[in-house]
Amino acid sequence: MHARVIARFNGLLILFLGLSMGVPLAVSVAFDDGSALALSASLLVTSGSGLLVFLAARNGKEPDPVLSHRDGVVIVATGWLMAGLFGALPYVFSGAIPSLTDACFESVSGFTTTGATILGDIEALPRAILLWRSQTQWLGGMGIIVLSIAILPYLGVGGMQLYKAEVPSPVVDRLKPRISDTAKALWKVYLTISCVEVLLLAAGKMSLFEAVCHTFSTMPTGGFSPKNASIAHYGSAYFDLVITSFMLIAGINFSLHYKALSGAPLVFLRDPECRAFLWIAGAFITLVALDIYGSVYGSLAAAFRHAAFQVVSILTTTGFITRDYETWPVFSRHILLVCMFLGGMAGSTGGGLKIMRVILMAKHSYRQMLGIIHPHAVFTVKLGGKPVPQEVIGSIWGFFTLYLGLFLSATLVMALLGLDFVSAFGSVAACIGNVGPGFGIVGPVENYLEVPAAGKWVLMFCMLLGRLEIYTLLVLMVPEFWRK
Amino acid sequence: MHARVIARFNGLLILFLGLSMGVPLAVSVAFDDGSALALSASLLVTSGSGLLVFLAARNGKEPDPVLSHRDGVVIVATGWLMAGLFGALPYVFSGAIPSLTDACFESVSGFTTTGATILGDIEALPRAILLWRSQTQWLGGMGIIVLSIAILPYLGVGGMQLYKAEVPSPVVDRLKPRISDTAKALWKVYLTISCVEVLLLAAGKMSLFEAVCHTFSTMPTGGFSPKNASIAHYGSAYFDLVITSFMLIAGINFSLHYKALSGAPLVFLRDPECRAFLWIAGAFITLVALDIYGSVYGSLAAAFRHAAFQVVSILTTTGFITRDYETWPVFSRHILLVCMFLGGMAGSTGGGLKIMRVILMAKHSYRQMLGIIHPHAVFTVKLGGKPVPQEVIGSIWGFFTLYLGLFLSATLVMALLGLDFVSAFGSVAACIGNVGPGFGIVGPVENYLEVPAAGKWVLMFCMLLGRLEIYTLLVLMVPEFWRK
Repeated sequence: MHARVIARFNGLLILFLGLSMGVPLAVSVAFDDGSALALSASLLVTSGSGLLVFLAARNGKEPDPVLSHRDGVVIVATGWLMAGLFGALPYVFSGAIPSLTDACFESVSGFTTTGATILGDIEALPRAILLWRSQTQWLGGMGIIVLSIAILPYLGVGGMQLYKAEVPSPVVDRLKPRISDTAKALWKVYLTISCVEVLLLAAGKMSLFEAVCHTFSTMPTGGFSPKNASIAHYGSAYFDLVITSFMLIAGINFSLHYKALSGAPLVFLRDPECRAFLWIAGAFITLVALDIYGSVYGSLAAAFRHAAFQVVSILTTTGFITRDYETWPVFSRHILLVCMFLGGMAGSTGGGLKIMRVILMAKHSYRQMLGIIHPHAVFTVKLGGKPVPQEVIGSIWGFFTLYLGLFLSATLVMALLGLDFVSAFGSVAACIGNVGPGFGIVGPVENYLEVPAAGKWVLMFCMLLGRLEIYTLLVLMVPEFWRK
Repeated sequence: MHARVIARFNGLLILFLGLSMGVPLAVSVAFDDGSALALSASLLVTSGSGLLVFLAARNGKEPDPVLSHRDGVVIVATGWLMAGLFGALPYVFSGAIPSLTDACFESVSGFTTTGATILGDIEALPRAILLWRSQTQWLGGMGIIVLSIAILPYLGVGGMQLYKAEVPSPVVDRLKPRISDTAKALWKVYLTISCVEVLLLAAGKMSLFEAVCHTFSTMPTGGFSPKNASIAHYGSAYFDLVITSFMLIAGINFSLHYKALSGAPLVFLRDPECRAFLWIAGAFITLVALDIYGSVYGSLAAAFRHAAFQVVSILTTTGFITRDYETWPVFSRHILLVCMFLGGMAGSTGGGLKIMRVILMAKHSYRQMLGIIHPHAVFTVKLGGKPVPQEVIGSIWGFFTLYLGLFLSATLVMALLGLDFVSAFGSVAACIGNVGPGFGIVGPVENYLEVPAAGKWVLMFCMLLGRLEIYTLLVLMVPEFWRK
């Protein structure tokens, strides 16, 4: 373990996080919304703390040591934790969210791109604070893209080693140089697509402020909206269409976007995970649309519009709302619950189990069936024509069991804390899947304020677990990890 | 595929099934309960059909062909289907359950030892019919023991190959001789324990008829009771204790009972799966007892008594009831829902996922975590100190995915058929786990009568899927299976 390097990374991260508060500070000054002082204080405390840690952990003239897997895990986990804590300062200092627990909840929910909120009257907040709220998600999204495409494949977490080939020339145990190259390339893509969404929303006469806020929450599949009623506020088919499209884009592996923008637009149709993702989205939209057509909506077009928005929103784990899906028939609600678990593609900003894992698990089960028919034959699981190594499959299974086990355990704890049957599992499913709105008392038209404080901390832990692909956080709790 | 041999096996099975109707027939005559004619007709039709098929499929002087894996699968699947269909005759002929769907439901629920019932006023039925109802479970239990210990290990279904060593000298592709030896040994154990339970219940002044009925439903972890209120009818701590103990016994691998009765009583403590099973049962009983103590029951003794009964009943997938657990706090209900999925030990008459699979999945997940810490080391999953082959782990994963996938699909279908959120997954969980009572409209004090007819057939399919360890039934639907 190289504590000094880990501290330096964290110091830099906090420093930049603090400086990024300059954006809402500028907005605050421009709109004169009264939060400028609070944001200045947050900026100074955050970037000051970051700078202090960075300077204290300077290396002098020694060269950087080679970072190990374990260093990588600690940097990722502490980085997200620190972002969550310092990101809460603007809420507390401005008095927008006076309770520390609630402020941390909103901040962790932001940086994990979950989108679960404790706010009832969102529109009462200063605009700069609302921007910061969406900005935490956008920054969280940048972290996730790098994490899932450039870091996790080398840590061997939950089958992500399958994506080693996505990044050229794997350099085992030497994460740093590769990461910065990959990060820069992917962030360009992320920024480009974000700009296009802002322009399209502004073209539909959404104010620039709201267009930026919504884009900041769409691209990381976050789901925070500056409007109490979320996207339902506008009641606009155009906005629904634009946001549905960009949620779908955000649910796709960003290395595919990189390739597509580099001149290979057919890459989406050639990628087996992407094909499956689009098929699943299409099938679920159709099923839900047919279910709510007649029973909820008189016109097939309206049924498809709302089905598409809500299925894509939950499947990509964004969590924007155009309709209170808890009033939909049971079948549609079950589909949305399944969506919460499926999640987006690996390498996207979406949460959940990820489509790649679900495909491989399904293929593996089918292969077992063939094994019963032909007991002496050997069947290999293939993805896109290429055999998938057994260790990748094993890694996915381990991930899946832990995901389910932690989901069940957290649900039991929430039940002990007094939540009802549906709310207990609805809140945990929505938080560990980084979706945001759940079922029951944390449903689409409610919020997490009523959850007891202890339950909020449990849910924050779930958000971090889900976002860090379970293992990256859980491994820190194994004594073996800290042994020399 | 050896159609002739498969038909002969089925003929024999149906013949014996028909002859076994002689027992309720005798009871009917003794009690003069008016069902003698219906039972005679059922006996004649069933055993007659069996005899006809058997004779038609006779082999002449040719020696028996060597049976393949595929023959084994077809025999098992058709055997359970036939038993379910012919077993419905006494209900229909006696008028006790006039609807064919309902009669099949009750019969399939019996032979799969599920214990889900469509009967509201159970006590209104003739006693002989009630005995037949429990007897279908007892016979189903005999089938399961042989299936899980002597057949599935050779078919390589869902990790059961781990138990090959339980049966001496594996003879691949030659199931028959080994099965009949194993069956006889295990049935003796089953019969012996059954007799002890009847005696203990009778010693507590339960009528012999009711003692036999309850034993017939305890040993196969079935759960049918001749009383409307199930075991709650007696309100007796003694009966609760006896039945709790025998449910626990029935949830243990019968080859352990065989060894214990052969003079190795410590075998239970040495077996890692059995230790885990007892630990889980103990932990869940304690948690539920502490949860319901105070909130539901004033005395700790009463809380433990009912917690023990209900946790063991659901964990072993029996489904007897002493208390309406749907009125218990959410935490306890969640624990019981988890129990529905866990199930008993492999090789027991219990359903669900089975403890062995859950242990191995948990161990595998932990091993994956160590793999992240030490990326170059190789970790092997061990059970009781012995390494578990990778193919067994893979087989368990396949089973688990299919179990969950089918659970979700069936839940969606039930939701489409109009069941509410909780009832849809509660009924499917209870049926695919072979538990019986579920949650919602199929809760402990309700029954399955209100489920629409199509839903009943879906649930029957779920019962068979669960009972035949998913693969044995599902493999028949793969075109590959039927190719030469």
